Amino acid sequence: MRRFFLTLICLFATMVLTDAQVSKYVNPMIGTTGMGHCFPGACAPFGAVQLSPDTDTIPHNINGKYQPEVYAYCAGYQYDDPTIVGFSHTHLSGTGHSDLGDILVMPQTGALQLHPGTKEDPDGGYRQRFSHDTEHAEPGYYEVTLADSGVRARLTATQRVGVHQYTYAEGSTQRLVVDLLHGIYNYDGKVLWSSLRVVNDTLVTGFRITDGWARFNQTYFAISFSKPVVNYGYADCRQPAYRGFWRKFDLHHNFPDIAGRDITAYFEFDGADPLLEVKVALSAVSAEGALKNLAAEAAGKSFDDIRRETAGAWERELGVVQCEGTDDQKASLYTALYHTMINPSVYMDVDGRYRGVDGEIHQAEGFTNYTVFSLWDTFRAEHPLLGLLKTSRNTDMVRSMLAHWRQNPVGMLPVWSLQGNEGWCMTGYHAASVVADALVKGAAIDPDEAFAAMVATADCPYLASQQDYIRYGYAPFDNDATAASNTLEYSFDDWCIYHAALQAGREDVAAAFLNRALSYRNIFDPSSGFASPRYKDGHFKADLDPLQTSGEGFIEGNSWNYSFHVPQDPRGLMECMGGEKVFRERLDALFDMDLPEKYYADNEDITADCLIGGYVHGNEPSHHVPYLYAWTREPWKTQDRVRTILNRMYRNDIRGLGGNDDCGQMSAWYVFSVMGFYPVAPGCDQYVFGAPYLPYLKVTLENGNTVEIKAPGVSDRNRYVRGVKLNGKPYTKLYITHQELQNGCTLEFEMGDRPNRKRGLAPEDKPYSLTQQ
Amino acid sequence: MRRFFLTLICLFATMVLTDAQVSKYVNPMIGTTGMGHCFPGACAPFGAVQLSPDTDTIPHNINGKYQPEVYAYCAGYQYDDPTIVGFSHTHLSGTGHSDLGDILVMPQTGALQLHPGTKEDPDGGYRQRFSHDTEHAEPGYYEVTLADSGVRARLTATQRVGVHQYTYAEGSTQRLVVDLLHGIYNYDGKVLWSSLRVVNDTLVTGFRITDGWARFNQTYFAISFSKPVVNYGYADCRQPAYRGFWRKFDLHHNFPDIAGRDITAYFEFDGADPLLEVKVALSAVSAEGALKNLAAEAAGKSFDDIRRETAGAWERELGVVQCEGTDDQKASLYTALYHTMINPSVYMDVDGRYRGVDGEIHQAEGFTNYTVFSLWDTFRAEHPLLGLLKTSRNTDMVRSMLAHWRQNPVGMLPVWSLQGNEGWCMTGYHAASVVADALVKGAAIDPDEAFAAMVATADCPYLASQQDYIRYGYAPFDNDATAASNTLEYSFDDWCIYHAALQAGREDVAAAFLNRALSYRNIFDPSSGFASPRYKDGHFKADLDPLQTSGEGFIEGNSWNYSFHVPQDPRGLMECMGGEKVFRERLDALFDMDLPEKYYADNEDITADCLIGGYVHGNEPSHHVPYLYAWTREPWKTQDRVRTILNRMYRNDIRGLGGNDDCGQMSAWYVFSVMGFYPVAPGCDQYVFGAPYLPYLKVTLENGNTVEIKAPGVSDRNRYVRGVKLNGKPYTKLYITHQELQNGCTLEFEMGDRPNRKRGLAPEDKPYSLTQQ
Repeated sequence: MRRFFLTLICLFATMVLTDAQVSKYVNPMIGTTGMGHCFPGACAPFGAVQLSPDTDTIPHNINGKYQPEVYAYCAGYQYDDPTIVGFSHTHLSGTGHSDLGDILVMPQTGALQLHPGTKEDPDGGYRQRFSHDTEHAEPGYYEVTLADSGVRARLTATQRVGVHQYTYAEGSTQRLVVDLLHGIYNYDGKVLWSSLRVVNDTLVTGFRITDGWARFNQTYFAISFSKPVVNYGYADCRQPAYRGFWRKFDLHHNFPDIAGRDITAYFEFDGADPLLEVKVALSAVSAEGALKNLAAEAAGKSFDDIRRETAGAWERELGVVQCEGTDDQKASLYTALYHTMINPSVYMDVDGRYRGVDGEIHQAEGFTNYTVFSLWDTFRAEHPLLGLLKTSRNTDMVRSMLAHWRQNPVGMLPVWSLQGNEGWCMTGYHAASVVADALVKGAAIDPDEAFAAMVATADCPYLASQQDYIRYGYAPFDNDATAASNTLEYSFDDWCIYHAALQAGREDVAAAFLNRALSYRNIFDPSSGFASPRYKDGHFKADLDPLQTSGEGFIEGNSWNYSFHVPQDPRGLMECMGGEKVFRERLDALFDMDLPEKYYADNEDITADCLIGGYVHGNEPSHHVPYLYAWTREPWKTQDRVRTILNRMYRNDIRGLGGNDDCGQMSAWYVFSVMGFYPVAPGCDQYVFGAPYLPYLKVTLENGNTVEIKAPGVSDRNRYVRGVKLNGKPYTKLYITHQELQNGCTLEFEMGDRPNRKRGLAPEDKPYSLTQQ
Repeated sequence: MRRFFLTLICLFATMVLTDAQVSKYVNPMIGTTGMGHCFPGACAPFGAVQLSPDTDTIPHNINGKYQPEVYAYCAGYQYDDPTIVGFSHTHLSGTGHSDLGDILVMPQTGALQLHPGTKEDPDGGYRQRFSHDTEHAEPGYYEVTLADSGVRARLTATQRVGVHQYTYAEGSTQRLVVDLLHGIYNYDGKVLWSSLRVVNDTLVTGFRITDGWARFNQTYFAISFSKPVVNYGYADCRQPAYRGFWRKFDLHHNFPDIAGRDITAYFEFDGADPLLEVKVALSAVSAEGALKNLAAEAAGKSFDDIRRETAGAWERELGVVQCEGTDDQKASLYTALYHTMINPSVYMDVDGRYRGVDGEIHQAEGFTNYTVFSLWDTFRAEHPLLGLLKTSRNTDMVRSMLAHWRQNPVGMLPVWSLQGNEGWCMTGYHAASVVADALVKGAAIDPDEAFAAMVATADCPYLASQQDYIRYGYAPFDNDATAASNTLEYSFDDWCIYHAALQAGREDVAAAFLNRALSYRNIFDPSSGFASPRYKDGHFKADLDPLQTSGEGFIEGNSWNYSFHVPQDPRGLMECMGGEKVFRERLDALFDMDLPEKYYADNEDITADCLIGGYVHGNEPSHHVPYLYAWTREPWKTQDRVRTILNRMYRNDIRGLGGNDDCGQMSAWYVFSVMGFYPVAPGCDQYVFGAPYLPYLKVTLENGNTVEIKAPGVSDRNRYVRGVKLNGKPYTKLYITHQELQNGCTLEFEMGDRPNRKRGLAPEDKPYSLTQQ
């Protein structure tokens, strides 16, 4: 009888696994080389664990000197590398700054090796050669054969547990290396402390603390083995693990309580059974937390059980989007959707305890705590997309940001939240945009707290030039090398507060932020119509080269691109540039120019691959720009430009991303643009139309309503929108609101090979702009 | 009306303070120079905070080279030093190994100095000159004037909060340095991380983690100021506090969230009011824990309130002993008693949370958790004394040891518990003696758990030579330089388990440990009658010099002293030595010999000051030896020897301790010996008689019963016991049991100038010995 039920359960489980209607299209190898900075390994949706092969370990600096090669290893994996160092448990997805790579595990046979070795001499360490022929990745699953040992490695993960299955060659030594020194963005001294305790012959707990990009990152773990450890030990430790001088035992062999600053351990197992399964649970709170996570998510489950459950979770998450298209189109779409659901990541134990930005342990009351907020990137489309498709998760992310604010001695919402740390990366205070966007779209957050947090952040004196920005109405270039970007970004964030306050009836706040929302105007040089660095005495930088990215007052963008960074007020922006015609012609010129190579040759973030004319899609500041035609007399040009970007910047290929995915922002742009609309100004409830990329797409919202987007006959040729119907009725506007989507609707696009040049010209059909015509 | 009550309260409080009937005799300056290693600062009884001036900061090593001067600074204070570096919050009392000195605070005026400077050039740093004329110490209180600034510094403490009151000279800058890099047993790299957060203008929280003797010591703190900080900053940090490259603010000035590996901060205050009060709460758990401790113990109380409360606590703790004697005798007795109640120290927040030896946070259920168990020292008399006078505290200490065992991946009771770490210092596993002693004396601990813990510890393979000890019956000298000591100490601890098991009816355990309890016999060389290093093949070291401390198989003692280390079986020991006469003559020779200087010239722990003949009182292995005459035909010699030691090794003087106080062990010996009896073999319920030192002494036990010890006419001349009455009836035994004391009793000693040579000769009057005559 028991067997009968087991059979039934297995059958059912297999059905779930093979019922991968949409997740089968996901290709985790997209973006795993070049600039994508994606990892191919296994994780659950928004999981705290990202278990993935690291193909090299370039140190961030050697003797204090920055090693630029570290940039390629933000996700630990570069497709062209010949070796795998091992499988570590935490990875950032698509970032342009690196860290993590915690708790590396690597199977080993033959002679004991406790150093990683080098790419050039893999035999000198525990790393191993591999062939991509043996490699396979799908959501929540990765496998590869390690050539030097013949070990077949299979990886899967729950939210908080990395699960490994290793099949050793018959008769070989079965050894596992656990390297607590390994890391991404490593340097000598990054590991402040690590500890490893052999609780019993199938359970090990411990932690490591690193001072990486995350200033003080505590990673506790609990590792369970499917069979008993018969022998174990450690590499020499830099610091003596005990100072007691009467200790006589051998610290390095079968001693269960080791600690120090450079621990590389090994565990050996009986070889009778070729299979070894290993479960590594993480926690930022404590080893007890890791044990709870292990018990709740993985205990008593086989590798295949967990693989199946996680595959099911991905199918459920991805399955909210259904579409028609070619396999490559589906691969691009579902992989993009997949990439939007890796970061932000859960940062909380199963019991609700998490480590706050104050370093203390907190109990999450009524929400799931998240980290990895790359907000300069993700405020644009990643959070709006999650707000639409994964509304309750996005609400919890906002709650996590508010908790960060409450716990932050600096009194700010996060700038770049990384494992409970503040990363102070890039400019603006775009958490305010995410909070405002959630407020405007009706998320269940406390508005009083939300406004308090946004206003405190806006007024925080630790933001670059913040006090000068208030005093002068712009960040002066005198002592701020990226003053012009700062002004534009603050001005947008200020508008987010203004607009949300207006919607919420908080006129006091709105009044205080209206002028600030318009302060972008103060840096447009009337003589050129370009946003320009401006000095305290009022004069503009004289010799501005608007194509030059560095040294001209901007950050990761030039004035040509950045001058369009006024998503809150395209109408007002036109005036600054010299009117609609100049604005429109400058948009055209941006996409159509021939950018001399000298303008991007030395830039980490701009390559020929990510350029369309002078438009840089590989980095974020211009992501909304192709949609700005909506405010001009030629809104149809968006349809053309966006399709070109979709075709050229995204491919079902290891090099399939034209730039860093940036925690899902590049991918979220793709998903929105495929649907046919984009949140130009998050904080506003409108999505501005481009055109659908696929003939049919259906989104199932959390409330059960569906949004159907029909564009029969759409193709590269039939890329233009002739007309739109909303729920069967002609629809003339150039945008749709969040509420209309939430209510459930059907959008029918009539497509053609020539633009409808009359559509969307009436003022009442234009999208939001702070300044009206 | 309110004022009336306040006046009443103040009056009452003053009465408590001035009612220092016994604590007024305590002289915390005793042992603050030379070998005592005591600190003069302020602490509550058994408090987690020991707030005391550090007079220098010798690093443990410089470029990896051991600096022997560090030994003098185990308590941070040497009386002869000309400067005070500052006031730090944690100190060990009387140890021979150093650590701690956490969270140094120092007032400062004039130019900003963030480095400590040197003894030779105090003006080059924040340290200041001082005169002992301005210094005063009493239990829970210390004051001094810092000469360079003129600041009057007053210190007091609750259990978990150090409280400072500084009076600045009029018109001076009021600055406070908080140095998170300072430490005792410091070395470059000891501070693994530190963090400091300015929560508001009167509250700072943070932590530091050190890798000192305590391998991984986490000290969280919350600091409250009596008036607002107007300006603050930090010294340069070795590690950048944030790696985010877009950070523009000045990390080093008025930025509230700093972290790194070498933080020295300063805080400045308005000078209108010369007074500044500072409360520094500690926690090993979290900043939240420190805040709770601050709130529960110190919030809303003035410096003088707290000083008064702590003075009252000391008076209550010390007041259980009442006596007659000279002021110097009382100073010695009450200071000794005071020293027995500094360590072990509470290691738990007010909410019962504490950090275990597994590094995890635990909730103490029904007990107070303690740390600082210097067990090689304190099993002898410190724990037995606390078991008698502070029974419930000693029971909680045993419970703390059992918790340590439960949480210890190594599976052992503590060897040297230091701030939740295992220190692996010295030999034996004497926690078993403390546990067994508590069991035998009826402490409320779970006997099953107690035996499980003791047996697991006895069998722990990580104890030096433990497996060889079982195999050969002794620790062989072949690969164990202190094999002979190890054998003697294990043998005693084994007996503790045996004896407690016998008493508890656990015959299985008793049977398993009887032979081990006798294994001391295996290292007595029949040719010399000395305990001797023995090789695996059975032969003894040929050229043993029984007076030589190093290289002869013993640790911190020579064979002459260590051969008497069989407190569990003096009868059996006599046989090993060659009979009662040889034994007795060897005892006499030990005390009467003229030890050539070469035998102690190079030894940190043995100086001429702590020698009586060849007997070393300054270190522990011989502490029971003067009482061994009880088993001979001349038991009266104990009375003579003990009085000589009391007179010569303890004085009301800064050099008043003949050796390290060792967390109260030297002092506990004093208290017992003054009472007239001593626990020769802890684990047995007998206290062996010497003779009372004072004419009258009364102990009030926790159960309310009293022990009165009368010795009218006792003096250096009348040092001999002519006869004893117990509760008015003649009493012929050479010992009294724990139960008799617990029941309450009166012991009357008839004293005289000549010994009663007939007393205590009958076999039935002899104290316990494993082997009977």
